[in-house]
Amino acid sequence: MGYEVTPWEVKGKIDYERLIEDFGVSKITPELLERIRSTAGGLHPLLRRGFFFAHRDLEKVLKDYEEGRGFFLYTGRAPSKSPMHIGHLIPFLMTKWLQEKFGVNTYIMIPDEEKYLAKKVDSLEEVEPRVRQDILNIAALGFDEDRTFIFRDTEFIGRMYKAAVHVARHINFSTAKAVFGFQGETSIGLIFYPALQIVPTLFEHRRPLIPCAIDQDPYFRLQRDVAPKLGFYKTAELLSKFVWGLLGPGTKMSASEPETAILLNEQPETAVKKILNAFTGGRATKEEQRRLGGRPEICVVYHWYTLLFEEDDKKLAERELACRTGRLLCGPCKRELAERVKRFLEEHQRRLKHAEKKARRMMYDGKLASEMWNWEFKPRQPLQPY
Amino acid sequence: MGYEVTPWEVKGKIDYERLIEDFGVSKITPELLERIRSTAGGLHPLLRRGFFFAHRDLEKVLKDYEEGRGFFLYTGRAPSKSPMHIGHLIPFLMTKWLQEKFGVNTYIMIPDEEKYLAKKVDSLEEVEPRVRQDILNIAALGFDEDRTFIFRDTEFIGRMYKAAVHVARHINFSTAKAVFGFQGETSIGLIFYPALQIVPTLFEHRRPLIPCAIDQDPYFRLQRDVAPKLGFYKTAELLSKFVWGLLGPGTKMSASEPETAILLNEQPETAVKKILNAFTGGRATKEEQRRLGGRPEICVVYHWYTLLFEEDDKKLAERELACRTGRLLCGPCKRELAERVKRFLEEHQRRLKHAEKKARRMMYDGKLASEMWNWEFKPRQPLQPY
Repeated sequence: MGYEVTPWEVKGKIDYERLIEDFGVSKITPELLERIRSTAGGLHPLLRRGFFFAHRDLEKVLKDYEEGRGFFLYTGRAPSKSPMHIGHLIPFLMTKWLQEKFGVNTYIMIPDEEKYLAKKVDSLEEVEPRVRQDILNIAALGFDEDRTFIFRDTEFIGRMYKAAVHVARHINFSTAKAVFGFQGETSIGLIFYPALQIVPTLFEHRRPLIPCAIDQDPYFRLQRDVAPKLGFYKTAELLSKFVWGLLGPGTKMSASEPETAILLNEQPETAVKKILNAFTGGRATKEEQRRLGGRPEICVVYHWYTLLFEEDDKKLAERELACRTGRLLCGPCKRELAERVKRFLEEHQRRLKHAEKKARRMMYDGKLASEMWNWEFKPRQPLQPY
Repeated sequence: MGYEVTPWEVKGKIDYERLIEDFGVSKITPELLERIRSTAGGLHPLLRRGFFFAHRDLEKVLKDYEEGRGFFLYTGRAPSKSPMHIGHLIPFLMTKWLQEKFGVNTYIMIPDEEKYLAKKVDSLEEVEPRVRQDILNIAALGFDEDRTFIFRDTEFIGRMYKAAVHVARHINFSTAKAVFGFQGETSIGLIFYPALQIVPTLFEHRRPLIPCAIDQDPYFRLQRDVAPKLGFYKTAELLSKFVWGLLGPGTKMSASEPETAILLNEQPETAVKKILNAFTGGRATKEEQRRLGGRPEICVVYHWYTLLFEEDDKKLAERELACRTGRLLCGPCKRELAERVKRFLEEHQRRLKHAEKKARRMMYDGKLASEMWNWEFKPRQPLQPY
């Protein structure tokens, strides 16, 4: 393969069509998009522009919703040694939009042990400052405080462990190895960890829907084997591509390589500089660009407009056309994006100041959070495949 | 090998001398026994009769004690679908004796998830009635209620998980596989489980001493690799042989095969019948036995006298001599044992009636238990091998 996609490593040039086949997920078709639009009363730009491009059982989620069975949302963020970058917000923004449109409960896992077990950091203590900051970043987005539960594994494990034991009992090492590519040097903690990541899909007796990047699919492929055996729903997934890093199309945004990403805690002025240095689809000279036009399809700046910085489809199309016809040069286009990114960061950092109280509500005091601190797992009769 | 010894399976005829070599543990020498006797002010029959026959670092435990650093005790019992039998009490009786002699804290783990993860039972619920009963059986033995903490994994996991993550991160799959013989069909839960069983060895910054049957050694062999990396002591072990079942020398006492074992919840009269049917070292006829004498070395009845039912060495020697010389026939010898077993069960079952309150103290309210519910794991600087 020209690429490798696991929850711990995404390498090489991603062929998304091929990934759909390899992972056995489904493409989001125009028909499905129309169904989402009519059920939700709108379509988030990340959906209508195909950044969320694949799914499992999304049509069943819509049916559950329409027929009154409801569903719930689940996503998460594993704290690492680096701060979150703008790309990390995407599954949360998608999740928040879904929560608003469908009014459903949302569970946000903070697996504060995962990076340590995966040997990406040298101690649990190393991620500790990030745990708090990541939670605040998420809380600042404005989820419904009574319908959202944010929990960190080392704190909520007391409630989750029994469910994790049930899940773990149903996953053989050979299966886990095939799905995740575990090796001899893999820690026994990382081998167990998938059981924990599956637990929140058992928080309710409804279908879970997980908005996440496609590299997380292996966990939920396993979930779909196990959950029916415990009498719970197979999870549905809404799967995104990866955000391009600033250095070029198809590159990764990595918080540990600062030149590739805009960090959420970055000085807005630093962010401006990074955007002005970003890789574009521009030509060698202004003259040439006026003559041949730019190439939005390989332009990181255009990519970012489509994802987070131009909500208006008409304006986005105008920008694309102006670029392709050589009327819009990279300089002003980048400056405009830099300005928007700067405003975005300033706004986010302002909201962060009020996030502490929100986080507390979603972790401990809010309606859903209070309920979850009394949650107890009980296995049910196995479900028929459904 | 003619035998197989893992924590989940003990098969074949055990060659204890060979086990000492294979496991790399040390034999308990007469010199070491003398040191225990002089430090403890006595020797438990299970020690002086060699049923606890091997160890790791026991001389270091004695040194720690003598030099004021102290040590602590740790043992446990995994609830299964069957009740506990008399043999299961042995590590606890040894532990209790050590606690009395040395006045040290004692931790008793009830891994209520282990049998389920090991696929020995089909649900967690299946062991639930036994969890309670096992705890009462242990509590009834009369440990120091302020120096003993009994905890079940699914309940105490909130306090243990962080430590388990640290341990798990330091155990690679290849090591765990080599130690436990994990296979493709092993559940990922059982692969993680050794990390949990190791956690109580990190409850104090002292040397842990674990009285247990030698099949548990693999867990603690791993512990001895990992603990110094986390700044904690390598565990010491006091290792026993296996109790013979009623059907013959070298057979297993198995609670799931009722004819092989005396269960703690058995009707005393049933126990009497089982003893009267036990395999002995007697001869084909009384006449022959009077002439040739019996063979205590292959006699289950004699074996049981040595372990639990004759504390007085002189009387035991007299019994052996009377048997060997043909003066004592199997009938009266068995009847006497049956009577003692019956009294033992009646006494134990009487004590069980008052065990509930003791159990509560050792699980929740007693001095050590109260402290442990606030325990928090903190890794330390790695220790030099010590």
